Amino acid sequence: MNSLQKRILIDGKVLPGNILKVDSFLNHQLDIHLLKEMGKDFYDLFRDKEINKILTIEASGIAIACYAAEFFNVPVVFAKKGQHKNVGTDVYTAEVFSFTKGSTYEVTVSKLFLHPEDKILIIDDFLANGQAVLGLQQIIKEAGAELCGAGIAIEKAFQPGEKLLLDAGIDVRALAVIESMDGCKVVFRD
Amino acid sequence: MNSLQKRILIDGKVLPGNILKVDSFLNHQLDIHLLKEMGKDFYDLFRDKEINKILTIEASGIAIACYAAEFFNVPVVFAKKGQHKNVGTDVYTAEVFSFTKGSTYEVTVSKLFLHPEDKILIIDDFLANGQAVLGLQQIIKEAGAELCGAGIAIEKAFQPGEKLLLDAGIDVRALAVIESMDGCKVVFRD
Repeated sequence: MNSLQKRILIDGKVLPGNILKVDSFLNHQLDIHLLKEMGKDFYDLFRDKEINKILTIEASGIAIACYAAEFFNVPVVFAKKGQHKNVGTDVYTAEVFSFTKGSTYEVTVSKLFLHPEDKILIIDDFLANGQAVLGLQQIIKEAGAELCGAGIAIEKAFQPGEKLLLDAGIDVRALAVIESMDGCKVVFRD
Repeated sequence: MNSLQKRILIDGKVLPGNILKVDSFLNHQLDIHLLKEMGKDFYDLFRDKEINKILTIEASGIAIACYAAEFFNVPVVFAKKGQHKNVGTDVYTAEVFSFTKGSTYEVTVSKLFLHPEDKILIIDDFLANGQAVLGLQQIIKEAGAELCGAGIAIEKAFQPGEKLLLDAGIDVRALAVIESMDGCKVVFRD
């Protein structure tokens, strides 16, 4: 069991509706020591891929992406959500449907920071329906860059995201793959 | 001259309207090496304050706060912008007026992560009008915690933020204090 899995069992809170709260260490309060261990784990999963850039989405992906980037020794680019006037007009955009919110939002990356020679690893905190990663894949395609994989902190394997990403040809791997949360008990995939 | 100041002179772009673009290294693409050096510089500025928590605002503050937190060996809490259903209802909130957008937004921190015994350092990327830091100060007061200082990456000293924060009793210090950007030339305070 890796550091994130152990921490989920200790400090994660399962709420009705298959909601897993990890805000005491991963997406509201941040445990820097855990983030570092996760960064090393992501590196171990994708170290053979010659990654030269990590792409994530604000806000919860940023810290996780930074600590992965440290091990790969590459920069992070974070996609901005919604309309961002100060990103400029020369941008890649994709529409992402959020099942949680029941609405669509736009993700934007400046064309200055994605290039055809880039070999990109996507990092994000949660994988449930996979729409955010598919939006980033579309942006990477537009840039003519190569998507080498998607590293996810926590995957809810009982939701359709993993299959959608695999079907889209994405090498998706998660640090904590949750098979079920029935009875508020977290069960990881072996 | 510190690492951030040097980098601003090399890669910062001054646009009409006193806009400084640092998105190639600080708030869209992130240079992890620079962030680490900035983290050390923040630690040197506030190391005598017995900080036990760093508070910032999503999204651009997160990476900067994490690398400062590493040197202080403390957790980061990032305030969320706008209405966040998944933060829960037991929250501290403050209204922040954005001069850039001409509108008000809400910042929210769960009550779970701020306590009366906390000695807090605020970290943020830019100081211009100071409204975001004043909003965080209000939240810290509501929690009964102690605000020990505000560490800012880039301060625009020709805007009123610094004076407002000093008048509010905040020990505000910035890594790069810009006195002027006249003629698109960045001049730092000595």
